[in-house]
Amino acid sequence: MTLKKIAQIIGSEFNGDDLEIKGMNTLKDAQQNELSFVSNSKYIKDIQNSNATAIIVDEKTREYVPDGCVALVVENPYWEMAILSKYFAPAIEDNSLAEPIIGEGSKVSSQAEIARGAVIGKNCTILAHVYVGANAVVGDNTILYPSVIVYRDCKIGNDCMIHANTTIGADGFGFATNKRGEHKKIYQNGNVVVEDDVEIGSNSCIDRAVFGSTLIKKGVRIDNLVQIGHNCEVGEYSVFVAQSGSAGSTKLGRNVVVGGQAAFAGHLKIAPFSTFAARSGVTKNITQSGKTFAGFPLMDHRLWLKLQIKIIKLLK
Amino acid sequence: MTLKKIAQIIGSEFNGDDLEIKGMNTLKDAQQNELSFVSNSKYIKDIQNSNATAIIVDEKTREYVPDGCVALVVENPYWEMAILSKYFAPAIEDNSLAEPIIGEGSKVSSQAEIARGAVIGKNCTILAHVYVGANAVVGDNTILYPSVIVYRDCKIGNDCMIHANTTIGADGFGFATNKRGEHKKIYQNGNVVVEDDVEIGSNSCIDRAVFGSTLIKKGVRIDNLVQIGHNCEVGEYSVFVAQSGSAGSTKLGRNVVVGGQAAFAGHLKIAPFSTFAARSGVTKNITQSGKTFAGFPLMDHRLWLKLQIKIIKLLK
Amino acid sequence: MTLKKIAQIIGSEFNGDDLEIKGMNTLKDAQQNELSFVSNSKYIKDIQNSNATAIIVDEKTREYVPDGCVALVVENPYWEMAILSKYFAPAIEDNSLAEPIIGEGSKVSSQAEIARGAVIGKNCTILAHVYVGANAVVGDNTILYPSVIVYRDCKIGNDCMIHANTTIGADGFGFATNKRGEHKKIYQNGNVVVEDDVEIGSNSCIDRAVFGSTLIKKGVRIDNLVQIGHNCEVGEYSVFVAQSGSAGSTKLGRNVVVGGQAAFAGHLKIAPFSTFAARSGVTKNITQSGKTFAGFPLMDHRLWLKLQIKIIKLLK
Repeated sequence: MTLKKIAQIIGSEFNGDDLEIKGMNTLKDAQQNELSFVSNSKYIKDIQNSNATAIIVDEKTREYVPDGCVALVVENPYWEMAILSKYFAPAIEDNSLAEPIIGEGSKVSSQAEIARGAVIGKNCTILAHVYVGANAVVGDNTILYPSVIVYRDCKIGNDCMIHANTTIGADGFGFATNKRGEHKKIYQNGNVVVEDDVEIGSNSCIDRAVFGSTLIKKGVRIDNLVQIGHNCEVGEYSVFVAQSGSAGSTKLGRNVVVGGQAAFAGHLKIAPFSTFAARSGVTKNITQSGKTFAGFPLMDHRLWLKLQIKIIKLLK
Repeated sequence: MTLKKIAQIIGSEFNGDDLEIKGMNTLKDAQQNELSFVSNSKYIKDIQNSNATAIIVDEKTREYVPDGCVALVVENPYWEMAILSKYFAPAIEDNSLAEPIIGEGSKVSSQAEIARGAVIGKNCTILAHVYVGANAVVGDNTILYPSVIVYRDCKIGNDCMIHANTTIGADGFGFATNKRGEHKKIYQNGNVVVEDDVEIGSNSCIDRAVFGSTLIKKGVRIDNLVQIGHNCEVGEYSVFVAQSGSAGSTKLGRNVVVGGQAAFAGHLKIAPFSTFAARSGVTKNITQSGKTFAGFPLMDHRLWLKLQIKIIKLLK
Repeated sequence: MTLKKIAQIIGSEFNGDDLEIKGMNTLKDAQQNELSFVSNSKYIKDIQNSNATAIIVDEKTREYVPDGCVALVVENPYWEMAILSKYFAPAIEDNSLAEPIIGEGSKVSSQAEIARGAVIGKNCTILAHVYVGANAVVGDNTILYPSVIVYRDCKIGNDCMIHANTTIGADGFGFATNKRGEHKKIYQNGNVVVEDDVEIGSNSCIDRAVFGSTLIKKGVRIDNLVQIGHNCEVGEYSVFVAQSGSAGSTKLGRNVVVGGQAAFAGHLKIAPFSTFAARSGVTKNITQSGKTFAGFPLMDHRLWLKLQIKIIKLLK
């Protein structure tokens, strides 16, 4: 889409050279020919180093956009970004893509649907009612149990096992809200990457990234009914027990253990080898590795045990 | 079904004029030719104004039933109502219904099943393994991702997006229990109505009403793994974050924000523009709009923050 | 598989008579010609009475293995057991099994898949996108709503109703972890048995046993988004409200009521007629029947109410 067209859609003035814009991204990750946006003043510091060709900003932020980068000025950059995200969303299915490729030795149920552009590796078992979307890739020796749904562009590694009714790559929960309280969907144009040797239980959800990838690293074990929000990274060999979850953009180190019904707020960094007891509620970064936590608000596990004794005393 | 037949099924005496009964309903919502019941003395006050043709009551409650309304007297009205509910349940699928209608420009996967009597609007995308039940209606421009299941009689609006493996209109959790601790299913003969511009995440559940409708109003955003119980009403532009839920019959005003893993007890009224932090547990009505809450038991969000400081002091 | 082959796979010395091993099991439940293991010193006491033909042990535990039982000595018995579990896992689907049998009066959607070896009873309704795995059995008059997935070898009773997108018999969450933090899957070679007159909501998960059966007894009611771990037993007429769950191997008596979002740790015993308020967290055995509990940590419900009053006072 051209910059001129973009400016027209969002009602911004634009007099510069017309350029082709290929996608949208964060300030940090934007490449040349990509469009970015500033929706929060805390990101102003990232403008200077961004490779974005154009940035949607409000009037106050315009001055931070350096020469050589186009500033598209609007009243509500987040709302306009949401509107534009739809234009950059690929079609759900695309008949112009090649027939799907099924690797040697793989068994695909006649009641599974592998969309055009998808590639299935060798020696896979794809059971009934599975859906593998456009351009999605499944590695070798991977088993997809019935009714596993893999959205377009997602990648599943080798030697993985995904249990029934699990959803990989549905849209992250993203929308802009205007003054009247109405919501506008932010299309989630990233994907999910599941590395090798990952097992995911039944009826779990791993959301696709808004930009870039939600990443489930090698050897991870995810139980049933688990929620992994968009743009999370789950480190190697980490474990999520049933009904636990993480809000978006949280990054866990390797061998983090997350107890049942525990949950993470968004945008956190969690040190490797951290352990969270069942129903922990994590709202702050964990910087020291190898520690065990419990409770909500979260505290050291021993402190939490001490608190329970205090509560019993309080009751006497 | 005739009153005579009904009296026979539930073992109640009946000597009046035989009448055709077309359905069951609450005392408040029952129309003429409908049957109602009193299972709890707190509803006795609603008998007087009910339009029900007949009411199932116990011996003690019989005297409150006015002339012109038939009292069917049994020992356990709730149990007998449960037994009768099955007789009023429509068939899951019905070959006598018309072929489904698919609107112009809609794409329906050959691996989706649209039941007889269903109507799909214009320009919809219905992906593989979707099921749309008998007499269900889907509006225009709506996207149903793979393995979305819409039970019979439910209505989905225009411009909606429902993600994979989500279930709309499964039976609400209703049953009667007798003295021996055995359960009898209450058939859920209502439906779900999802208005326009609603997005629902993956692996979520919106249960059908026992009578009437579970209602998801315009512009609502529901994340993954969310539970909405039977007969709930979710106001315009309200937001449910992942793994949150509501028990049955709770009514939320517009723009209510429900954090991750938060939950509502049943039969509550929640004022518009209320915000509930992650893992809030709501057990009382919220009457003042625009406030923010946290904790379980629920308290003002600032009070909850204060409590956390007190707890830390207590530990020192 | 022969003992010789087993010893070779796990790198254990073996000089005795070669014997055919037919399966793996716990010390307690192992029959002759089965293999067992000791991964924790607290199970040493069970060695003496085990009928296992061979037991995988570490060097320290070897001396407890009686004459007539083969001790296979390795460094990490749990890890080696995990490796072996794969060899005893049956194929997901098996073309040598008989064509599935569908009972008289049953309707099976052409978009459902019933695997070879499966048996469906009389007068069942099997809707679209259902999968019933190899050797699975479904009783009479049972309704499987769309996209219900029943894994191989599981048994569903008569007069059951299972709602859409629910998964019965996916693998329990079991794996061994080595010193480098890597995980090895323990194949779950047991099954799930659901007795008669059970209703299960939508998007719930009942995991198959590692050995033996996960058992859902007669008349149980399970709501939506509920997690039942491997080897649990849920007593007659017990009730799990939405988003509640139990970790593995917990045994509940009859008529236990589990509120919404409540959860059980693993390996507990819960007395019959116990009631747990919403969001209870149960980490200890309940030995007295008929009591009501709340909170996490769990306490008597009246005590919990008292605690809330104390907390309010603390805040003043």
